[in-house]
Amino acid sequence: MELGMIGLGRMGGNMAQRLVLGGHRVVGYARNPDTLREIEKKDIVPAATLEALVNELKSPRTIWLMVPAGAPVDETITALWPLLIPGDIIIEGGNSNYKDTQRRAQMLATSKIHLVDAGTSGGVWGLQNGYSIMVGGDEQVIEGLRPIFETLAPAPDKGWGRVGPSGAGHFTKMIHNGIEYGMMQAYGEGFAILRHKQEFNLDLHQIAEIWRDGSVVQSWLLDLTAAALAENPGLEGIAPYVADSGEGRWTVAEAIDLDVAAPVITLALLQRLQSRDSDSFSNKLLSALRNQFGGHAMKKE
Amino acid sequence: MELGMIGLGRMGGNMAQRLVLGGHRVVGYARNPDTLREIEKKDIVPAATLEALVNELKSPRTIWLMVPAGAPVDETITALWPLLIPGDIIIEGGNSNYKDTQRRAQMLATSKIHLVDAGTSGGVWGLQNGYSIMVGGDEQVIEGLRPIFETLAPAPDKGWGRVGPSGAGHFTKMIHNGIEYGMMQAYGEGFAILRHKQEFNLDLHQIAEIWRDGSVVQSWLLDLTAAALAENPGLEGIAPYVADSGEGRWTVAEAIDLDVAAPVITLALLQRLQSRDSDSFSNKLLSALRNQFGGHAMKKE
Amino acid sequence: MELGMIGLGRMGGNMAQRLVLGGHRVVGYARNPDTLREIEKKDIVPAATLEALVNELKSPRTIWLMVPAGAPVDETITALWPLLIPGDIIIEGGNSNYKDTQRRAQMLATSKIHLVDAGTSGGVWGLQNGYSIMVGGDEQVIEGLRPIFETLAPAPDKGWGRVGPSGAGHFTKMIHNGIEYGMMQAYGEGFAILRHKQEFNLDLHQIAEIWRDGSVVQSWLLDLTAAALAENPGLEGIAPYVADSGEGRWTVAEAIDLDVAAPVITLALLQRLQSRDSDSFSNKLLSALRNQFGGHAMKKE
Amino acid sequence: MELGMIGLGRMGGNMAQRLVLGGHRVVGYARNPDTLREIEKKDIVPAATLEALVNELKSPRTIWLMVPAGAPVDETITALWPLLIPGDIIIEGGNSNYKDTQRRAQMLATSKIHLVDAGTSGGVWGLQNGYSIMVGGDEQVIEGLRPIFETLAPAPDKGWGRVGPSGAGHFTKMIHNGIEYGMMQAYGEGFAILRHKQEFNLDLHQIAEIWRDGSVVQSWLLDLTAAALAENPGLEGIAPYVADSGEGRWTVAEAIDLDVAAPVITLALLQRLQSRDSDSFSNKLLSALRNQFGGHAMKKE
Repeated sequence: MELGMIGLGRMGGNMAQRLVLGGHRVVGYARNPDTLREIEKKDIVPAATLEALVNELKSPRTIWLMVPAGAPVDETITALWPLLIPGDIIIEGGNSNYKDTQRRAQMLATSKIHLVDAGTSGGVWGLQNGYSIMVGGDEQVIEGLRPIFETLAPAPDKGWGRVGPSGAGHFTKMIHNGIEYGMMQAYGEGFAILRHKQEFNLDLHQIAEIWRDGSVVQSWLLDLTAAALAENPGLEGIAPYVADSGEGRWTVAEAIDLDVAAPVITLALLQRLQSRDSDSFSNKLLSALRNQFGGHAMKKE
Repeated sequence: MELGMIGLGRMGGNMAQRLVLGGHRVVGYARNPDTLREIEKKDIVPAATLEALVNELKSPRTIWLMVPAGAPVDETITALWPLLIPGDIIIEGGNSNYKDTQRRAQMLATSKIHLVDAGTSGGVWGLQNGYSIMVGGDEQVIEGLRPIFETLAPAPDKGWGRVGPSGAGHFTKMIHNGIEYGMMQAYGEGFAILRHKQEFNLDLHQIAEIWRDGSVVQSWLLDLTAAALAENPGLEGIAPYVADSGEGRWTVAEAIDLDVAAPVITLALLQRLQSRDSDSFSNKLLSALRNQFGGHAMKKE
Repeated sequence: MELGMIGLGRMGGNMAQRLVLGGHRVVGYARNPDTLREIEKKDIVPAATLEALVNELKSPRTIWLMVPAGAPVDETITALWPLLIPGDIIIEGGNSNYKDTQRRAQMLATSKIHLVDAGTSGGVWGLQNGYSIMVGGDEQVIEGLRPIFETLAPAPDKGWGRVGPSGAGHFTKMIHNGIEYGMMQAYGEGFAILRHKQEFNLDLHQIAEIWRDGSVVQSWLLDLTAAALAENPGLEGIAPYVADSGEGRWTVAEAIDLDVAAPVITLALLQRLQSRDSDSFSNKLLSALRNQFGGHAMKKE
Repeated sequence: MELGMIGLGRMGGNMAQRLVLGGHRVVGYARNPDTLREIEKKDIVPAATLEALVNELKSPRTIWLMVPAGAPVDETITALWPLLIPGDIIIEGGNSNYKDTQRRAQMLATSKIHLVDAGTSGGVWGLQNGYSIMVGGDEQVIEGLRPIFETLAPAPDKGWGRVGPSGAGHFTKMIHNGIEYGMMQAYGEGFAILRHKQEFNLDLHQIAEIWRDGSVVQSWLLDLTAAALAENPGLEGIAPYVADSGEGRWTVAEAIDLDVAAPVITLALLQRLQSRDSDSFSNKLLSALRNQFGGHAMKKE
């Protein structure tokens, strides 16, 4: 098939390359001439403008968006919209909020342009291992895109599927990331306890390796944990500061909206917030309160 | 009545004074000559040795221990034991683990010495307002101590009571402190959210004052919160570091032993642990993991 | 002063009565003829229609809304709006989301009608004890309403205040309720642990009473806990089912929006969700998983 | 090598069989004649008494204990001890508390009998896939047992290792199980949210399958989740009741002892406690309290 790719960063760039290696014709859009030259070397057809990208594709066109969630997605769709014709397809592969996706799909449907949401997991390893893709949107449209998903996935019949109507792909990806938060935090806590058990002087990398084979906690995240600990066993120089990209927040909000208690995913998110607040007002007030009622000394800043 | 007091720190000293003001004869033990001179001014009979203290009291003696939980209690009891005779009473007022209390009571009972556990709340305000006292031990023995408890309590018939056999007093005090952890954390979090809502530029002290009258969250801890915020509205110079004295940990362990889920008390404890760990290994590992799978930059220390 | 009251339920009815007892003229709106007859007996001027209520008041009018948050507030404001003139004041005393309040205030401002948000705490006890009121809105407008707030509060200079611009009152009340969730859960957990410690056969009502005087955990909620346990020591016949009215959810969402970790308030909310989910899919999956990897028997429904 | 196996249940039976298939001579102890006949068919040498088992093995003997943690381990060791001679080795493969292991190792060392702790993960799949084994004890002794561990592990050089001195194996296994709790709960919550999102009518089994390949949350536990959902997509008939075997509790206690906040592992444990408490006293008290202050109706049991 042929496909346009907008957003050639870490994720989009690798996906474009995997599609080319899989025999597809990929037109890539980039404003930066350096990027254009570079993708050309990887057999991606360069397009310096959205118009050029659209003109390089035969209708009905398929254009994959891999840009940051939020405003960039809206801006790109707004710019693309007048260039497309009925029957054209936009695949939105970023970490968008599924409610935005539902809104955008309805909007584009007024021009008979299809929006397909493709929640994509796999990170920087996807180029080599394939991506796990949760697809939402019109059944027939998605069926027509099958060659693309079969190439991007780890195997044609594995790791991808249409999970429901517009928004369902991004919804499922959101929950996926919520689970990811919980799992990561579980490993983080477990290794922290091992680390603090100085009595045993444990080799954390060795333990991660032992667990990788045969244990109940074996997983891809554990493989990566082992790799991280191999590179830097004491995690020296890394700040205890954990960013979050939004999907954890949405998962927590969604769970509460649905009256589902999700304490572990929720706490995993709060832990990240806390990792970035070294000046907790709450903790200060507790210190002040202990001084008020018990005369306990407060530690000074 | 007459009573010996061992441990004349912030708590014990104030309690001795309240008892003197209530008309009791109090003999106080201290090794430090300065302390002895000071308590004498407050009409507490000074005793420079445990022997002196015991000799100053007529049998059956009542001796109140107000020393730090753990080894100091065991050491003091071990030193006192040979000086006492059957019928003498030790009241243990500290924050001891109730299992230690049960063990000590059984041990002393072999010499017909009574151990009464008196879980005591009220902090530095107790001298003025009276103490809340949860008493465990033999019913008749405690009945004989009524004049002491009636003086220490806010009112003769209020704020104290025998709650059960040996250990029950310290057990109840332990749970009291667990609840205290949860309440403090609830206030801490609430005021932290108010503080971070910069859009409204809220006056936290004013809000605490408003809540003190008529609201559902009015409490003595809120009174103290208002006082702390009046003194230092931005809690400047106070480190976000919260100590814990052990009872929260025991409450959490006890809840789990009893198969009772106590997430709020538990999280309040974990929050304190976290306030003292500015170098979280868990957070570092999460940062490293995000780099492994997503290529996300790690913040450097 | 004179004031119209819309919403004469448990909260509004009591507030109207407290205002009348304080010497204010109160016009009450109710559709139900029985309600009208009843409020008349309490010296509240009855109005069977909104038009009647508005006509009974001299401009600039003050109308207090005490209706359920959400659609009922919007509907009432929409119905009132055309009946009011510039300078009239609506006080919104319900548990509205502060963002709705900000939106409504802006909307009404286009007709120079003032919206004052008055977050009100005190429950069914407010009639007798007075209410704690957190007020948001224009400073001068609120100054003019001083006689009303001074009557509703526990004392003229206590338990109420303007905390900021439009929305700040409801925001502060929201956080108040978040703290309330945390405190209630802390008590709930503590008493549950006491209850399960069968070895000591503790009298929970007695313990609540002891704590009411002199202890660190004394509070109004504890007074109510003591009352509840006096009425029904084993809480027999009460389902372990806890409703939530929305403000806890908003507090959790707000905390996350502000990057503030509020684990205790958050868990207190999740606990309520869980109290209503006796058929947890998550727990079922865990049971199934334990069977998958360990061959552990699953309990059947 | 040759080895005695005490405890031929789900775990021990499979391990004995894997060892036989790997060319080792295994003597199995069972009191039940049926069990003895059955193991004989699997080429395990049957021993009807501990004496018989010991006599079947040449010194220095290696005896693997695979009995339930706690009293059964102590009882078995007590019975074995007088039958063994200096240099004999007991491998303890159960889920024992590492502190018990340290105590037992010291005790047996007085007779120069070695105790090796072998924390073993893998469940009912270990026979086929091999076990992940975390070994604690004397380095040289463990080196001598290499052929056994190499056979039990998924591959000779994978999935097993000596992690430290006596107790370190069981300690590491304990943390492993803590992580397992957190991961299971993360999946449980995620799938529960998916399940409650009725708008999308998601196929949970399909989603689990999609995630198994290429996603960040792929793991062995996810493979089992997919299998469980394939068998019973709605988890019909399974009670929402989750047992716990003790290691989660110990992990939580250990984390607190080490001042490490492990909120996710901790909450995962509390969730299990809660799954078994359908009559929460805490929830009842909250319902009663809401009635006390707000007049809210209580749901009746």
